[in-house]
Amino acid sequence: MSTQFPAGPLLSKIQAPADLRKLPANQLPAVCEELRQYIIDHVSVNGGHFGASLGVTELTVALHYVFNTPYDQLVWDVGHQAYGHKILTGRQGVFHTNRLLGGISGFPKRSESEYDTFGVGHSSTSISAALGMAVASRYKKEFDRQHIAVIGDGSMTAGMAFEAMNHAGDIPNNMIIILNDNCMAIDPNVGALKEYLTDITTSHTYNKVKDDVWNLLGKMSRFGKSAQEIVSKIENGLKATLLKQSNLFESFNLRYFGPIDGHDVEYLATVLRDLKDIPGPKILHCVTTKGKGYSLAEKDQTLWHAPGKFDKLTGEIEKKTYDNPQAPKYQEVFGHTLLELAEQNPKIMGITPAMPSGSSLNIMMAAMPDRAFDVGIAEQHAVTFSAGLATQGLTVFCNIYSSFMQRGYDQVVHDVCLQKLPVIFCLDRAGLAGADGPTHHGNLDIAMMRCVPNMIVAAPRNEQELRNIMYTASLDKFKERGEAISIRYPRGQGVMPAWRTNFEEIEIGTGIELNRGKDVAILSLGHIGNEAIKAVELLASQGIDAALYDMRFSKPLDEKLLHEIFRKFNTILTVEDASIVGGFGSAIAEFMVDHQYQANMIRLGIPDHIVEHGEQSELYALCGIDSNGIAQKIADQLGAKAHVKASKALTD
Amino acid sequence: MSTQFPAGPLLSKIQAPADLRKLPANQLPAVCEELRQYIIDHVSVNGGHFGASLGVTELTVALHYVFNTPYDQLVWDVGHQAYGHKILTGRQGVFHTNRLLGGISGFPKRSESEYDTFGVGHSSTSISAALGMAVASRYKKEFDRQHIAVIGDGSMTAGMAFEAMNHAGDIPNNMIIILNDNCMAIDPNVGALKEYLTDITTSHTYNKVKDDVWNLLGKMSRFGKSAQEIVSKIENGLKATLLKQSNLFESFNLRYFGPIDGHDVEYLATVLRDLKDIPGPKILHCVTTKGKGYSLAEKDQTLWHAPGKFDKLTGEIEKKTYDNPQAPKYQEVFGHTLLELAEQNPKIMGITPAMPSGSSLNIMMAAMPDRAFDVGIAEQHAVTFSAGLATQGLTVFCNIYSSFMQRGYDQVVHDVCLQKLPVIFCLDRAGLAGADGPTHHGNLDIAMMRCVPNMIVAAPRNEQELRNIMYTASLDKFKERGEAISIRYPRGQGVMPAWRTNFEEIEIGTGIELNRGKDVAILSLGHIGNEAIKAVELLASQGIDAALYDMRFSKPLDEKLLHEIFRKFNTILTVEDASIVGGFGSAIAEFMVDHQYQANMIRLGIPDHIVEHGEQSELYALCGIDSNGIAQKIADQLGAKAHVKASKALTD
Repeated sequence: MSTQFPAGPLLSKIQAPADLRKLPANQLPAVCEELRQYIIDHVSVNGGHFGASLGVTELTVALHYVFNTPYDQLVWDVGHQAYGHKILTGRQGVFHTNRLLGGISGFPKRSESEYDTFGVGHSSTSISAALGMAVASRYKKEFDRQHIAVIGDGSMTAGMAFEAMNHAGDIPNNMIIILNDNCMAIDPNVGALKEYLTDITTSHTYNKVKDDVWNLLGKMSRFGKSAQEIVSKIENGLKATLLKQSNLFESFNLRYFGPIDGHDVEYLATVLRDLKDIPGPKILHCVTTKGKGYSLAEKDQTLWHAPGKFDKLTGEIEKKTYDNPQAPKYQEVFGHTLLELAEQNPKIMGITPAMPSGSSLNIMMAAMPDRAFDVGIAEQHAVTFSAGLATQGLTVFCNIYSSFMQRGYDQVVHDVCLQKLPVIFCLDRAGLAGADGPTHHGNLDIAMMRCVPNMIVAAPRNEQELRNIMYTASLDKFKERGEAISIRYPRGQGVMPAWRTNFEEIEIGTGIELNRGKDVAILSLGHIGNEAIKAVELLASQGIDAALYDMRFSKPLDEKLLHEIFRKFNTILTVEDASIVGGFGSAIAEFMVDHQYQANMIRLGIPDHIVEHGEQSELYALCGIDSNGIAQKIADQLGAKAHVKASKALTD
Repeated sequence: MSTQFPAGPLLSKIQAPADLRKLPANQLPAVCEELRQYIIDHVSVNGGHFGASLGVTELTVALHYVFNTPYDQLVWDVGHQAYGHKILTGRQGVFHTNRLLGGISGFPKRSESEYDTFGVGHSSTSISAALGMAVASRYKKEFDRQHIAVIGDGSMTAGMAFEAMNHAGDIPNNMIIILNDNCMAIDPNVGALKEYLTDITTSHTYNKVKDDVWNLLGKMSRFGKSAQEIVSKIENGLKATLLKQSNLFESFNLRYFGPIDGHDVEYLATVLRDLKDIPGPKILHCVTTKGKGYSLAEKDQTLWHAPGKFDKLTGEIEKKTYDNPQAPKYQEVFGHTLLELAEQNPKIMGITPAMPSGSSLNIMMAAMPDRAFDVGIAEQHAVTFSAGLATQGLTVFCNIYSSFMQRGYDQVVHDVCLQKLPVIFCLDRAGLAGADGPTHHGNLDIAMMRCVPNMIVAAPRNEQELRNIMYTASLDKFKERGEAISIRYPRGQGVMPAWRTNFEEIEIGTGIELNRGKDVAILSLGHIGNEAIKAVELLASQGIDAALYDMRFSKPLDEKLLHEIFRKFNTILTVEDASIVGGFGSAIAEFMVDHQYQANMIRLGIPDHIVEHGEQSELYALCGIDSNGIAQKIADQLGAKAHVKASKALTD
C-alpha cells in the first residue's frame, strides 16, 4: 500500500554519509532541499511524523557531513525527527515502509542500523546515553571519538536531561549537546526554561558578548591545533568573569555556544567543525523552525506534528477512516467529559505533562486556564504536583499516556498511594499503540499499578463506562476510600456514536455480565471487551455458548461475581490488551489459586516479548487478542477437551 | 526499650510553634541549643538519622518562628532532617518512640500531624508538592498563605526538582524554596551543580553584587507595605541587567537570594520575614553544616548521617548486634565481589546514584575511579547512562535500592530492556527496609520487573548465591541472551561467615531443592528462604515433612522443576519478601493455571497494604513471613485438610 517516490539527483547518490562527505560544502543546501522534498513526498502518502524532521533537515545534513558517523556517535532525542537521518544512512530505499508492519521503525532503532546508536521514543534520554558512550570511548582510549546528543527544547524540560548535564559537566568526556530550540514539544513548549531560551535568543546585550566570543572562535578555526589554547585564553579572560555564571548551561560546566541559525547548513557545518576541536562537554544552541520548508506546517505546528496522510500540493489532510466512523476518540471523550464535570464541580483540576492536544486536556485548558495545567515533559513533577493539589482537597485528574506513566511510577507509589491521596490517573494510549511501536505500547500499566497498595485499577469498555468511571472518581465520597485510581483506555476510537450518556455511578470493583452462556466464560477488561463481544458471536455460529463478563476492574476484583463464575464454569478465558505477565489474567489466576478453584483457565494478552510496530488491528491479531484469536482459542480448547473426552470414552 | 530525656527550660514549654512565637528573637539561639541537645540525647540512645537534623536546627526554629505553620505550609524534602520540626510541633513527648514499631515515623507523615504537610522519604519531591499546595491556595484565593519547600543541594541534583522549578517559574504562586546547601547527600554531593553552588558561595565579585541587593532588601523591611515597590525597582534596575541571566535559578525565573549563613538563627528569621513580603516564587540559598554542633558529626558527615546508637560524650558508636555476628552485610558482599570481578574483567563498570557507601560501591570507586561512578541522586540518568555504556560492550553493574529503582522504571523498560542491553541491576534494600518504613520498603520490584520483556528477575538466598549470580551475569556469554537482570537482596546481614566462596556459574532460571519432603512443598525466593529453612525444622518437630525449594528466579521460572513439584505435591506454599500482588507467588500461580495443575496453593508475602516502620524482624513476623508464620500457615492448612478428611470419613 506504500508508495515510493524518486529522490533528487544528489540525494539518490547518497547511500551512506560517506557519499555525502564527498560533496563540496556549497552543494549542501541543494542536498537539504532534496532531502526535505523526499520527506514531504513520502510522509504525505504514508503518514508519520512530519514537522520535526523538516525542522532538523539542515542539522541532519551538517552532522553527517562533519562527523565521522557511525564511528562518531549520534543520539537523537525522542527520534521522531530522525527521518532525514534514516534517509541519509542507507534507508532511502526502504523509507516508504516507515512505520508499517514489517517496515522500518519511525524511530531510531539499534537493530535497524549501526547509525542508530540508541533506540528512542520517549524524551530526554539522549544526553545520558551519549554520555555513557563518551565515557566508554574515553575508557577505551578512543580520544578522537565524538558523541553528539540532539535534544529539543521540549525534551530539555524533563528532569532526566538535567540529571545528565549535572553528571556530564563533572567528568571528562567528548560530548556535544545540540539544543534544537524550536519552542515546541508536540504542543508549544511551556515553562520558565522556554522563556529563558527566548531571552537568550533575543537579548542584544547578551548576544553582543556572545558574538565577540563567537568571532574569536571563528578566527580560531584557521589556527588548527593551537585552537585549544586560544579557547583557553578566551575562557580565562572574557568568559571567566562574564560568562562563567552567566548562563544556565555554563552553570553545569558545559561550554555554551550560540544561539545560531539552525537552517544555514553551510554555517552549521563550519561551526560543528570548530566545536569538534574543543575538548570537553559543550552545548550548541540552534534555533530552528518546526515544519521548516512546508509553510502550512510552519504555521500550525501542532497539527502538522504528525498529520497523517495529506495532499502535499493543497495541504489538505486526509481524514483517517475508522471502523465506527461516528464514534469519537477516547481522548475526546476524556477531554469533553472532564470539562463537563469541572463545570459542575469547582474542585476539579486537570494536569497533563506536555500532551494538551494528545490527551484533549486542551479543551479544559481553553475554558478554564486557572484549573488545567500543562507542566511540560515532566511526568514525575506532574504526579507529585497532582498529589500536592490533592492534599488541599482538590479533585485532580492527571492524564498521562500509559507508557509515559512509567516515568512517574515512583511518584505514584511514594507521593500518591502511600499517602492515600485520591488522585485520578487517566492513562491514554494504553495497550498496543500501533505505528509508534514498542516504545509507545502501554502494556505494563496494569501490572505496575496493581501491585501498589491503595490503587484502584480500572479500564472502561466504552465511552459510557469511561464517562461513568470519571464521574464516580470525581464524587466526594470517592475520596473517603483513601485510594487513587488508574483509568486506562486505548489510542483511537471508541464504539458509541451517541456517547454523551448521562452520568451514573459505578460501584468500584464490580463487573457486569454482558452475555449469559454455559460452555465457557470470557472475562474481559476494558476496550478489548468489544473484541470479546464479536468473539461470542463467532462462537455462537459454531454452536458454542460463551458467557461474557466485562470485569471493568483488575483491582479490586469483583469477588462475588468471580465466585459465581468459578462455581459455574470449567473453562475460563481472560483477555486484556496488556502484558500477560502480572496483569489482569494474573489477578484472576491469583483469585483462582487463593480460593482453590479448579478450572481450565486460558490467559490472553500481550505476550512477554517485544511487539513491534504496525496498525493497531494488525498487532491485536498478531497477539491473538482480536475477535478471531479469542474465538479460535476457545474453539481449540473446547475441541481438545471434547477430543480428550471422546478418546477417553473410546478407551473406557 | 526507648529512653526519654528531659527538654531544656525553653524547649519544654514549646508544645507547638505558637509557643515558640511568643519568645523574643534574642532567645532563639538558646532554643536552638536546647533543641540540638534534645536531638543528640535521643538519637544517641534510640538511633536514627542524625547529621541532617543538626544541620537545620536554626532553619527549623526560624521557619516555625516566622511562618504561621500549619496554615503556612512547610514541606521538608526527604525528611530525615525533620526531627527538630517534629519536636517543635507537638511531638516532643513522643520523640523517644521515633522509628520504633508503633512509634512516630522517622519522616514527616501526613497522618501523624497537620504540620507534616507532605509525606516524604525519597528525595526531590518537595518543590512539586509545595507548588501544588501553592496553586491550590491561589485558586482558593488564600493569597496570604505561604508555601515553603526545604531542599538539600543533594536533592537538587534529581531531575524532578528541575521539572518543578521549570513549572514554578512560569506560573503565579507564593512559594519559597530554601536551598539547604551543605555539600552533602548521604555521601558528599557530586556533579557540576555542586561546583556551581560552591562558586557562588565563594565568589567575591558575585557576592559583592548580591550584597548590594541584599542591603537594599534589608533596608526595605523597614518600609513595610512599600517593600514590594522597592523590590520591583531593584529588579528593574540592577537585577534586570546583571542578575537576570546571571544565575541558574534566575534562569528559571525564580528570584534568588543569598547565599546566607544557615546557622545564624536571628538573621535567618529577619531574612525569612523579608521574603514573606516578596510575591512570586523565590529561592533562598542557605549554607549549613551537616552535623552542626556535634563536632565528630561535622568531621565525618557520612558516618554520622545515621550512626545508630552512640555514647554522646565519647562519640563511640555502638556496634549493631545481629543474629549471625560473623556474617557480612549483603551490601558488603556486593561491594567486595564487584571489585573482585572487575579486577579480572576489564569490561566491568559500576554505577550508583548517590549511594556509594550505602551500596558499598565506594570499594570499587576507591580502587578504580575511572570505572565506578556516583552520578548523584539521579536514578533515571543512572539507568540510561548504564545503557549507554552497555551499548559499547561494557559489563555494567548498576546498583540502586529497590524502592529508588521505581524512579528509573521507564528507563529500565525503554532504554535497557527494549534494546536488549545486558545491564546488571543490583537492587539493595529489597523487601522490608525496617525502621525507615513504607517509603523505603522494597516490595514492588519483583512485580514491576517481572512484566518487562527481556528482564531476568533473580534473588539470591545467601552470600554465595549473590556472588555466583553476579559472576554469571558478568560472563560474556550472558550478553548473548539479550536480557537484563535484576538481582535483589535485602538490607542487612546475610548468613555465611565464610562468604568468600569460589565463583560458580548458575544456570539462569534454575532453582534447587534444599530439602526433600513429602507432605508439602515450600517454594521460596531469595533471602527469605533462610526463614523457610527454619520453618522446615519447626514443621519436622511437629511431624510434618516439608520439602523446600529455593527457586532463585521469579523469571524465567524453572519450569522443569515446577512440573516435578506440581506432579508430586497437593499443597504448595510460596514465600517471598515482596508484594503478594504480582510477585513471585503470582508467577507460580500463573504457571499453575497455565499448565492446568490442581493444587492447594498458599501465597505468602508482603500484603497489599502499607506496612509501617519497625525492626525488620518485627515486620517479617507481622507479615507472617518469618519462620513461625510460614510453619504456622502450613500446620493450619494441613490440619484443616486433615480435619476435612476426618469429618468426611465420619460422614461417609
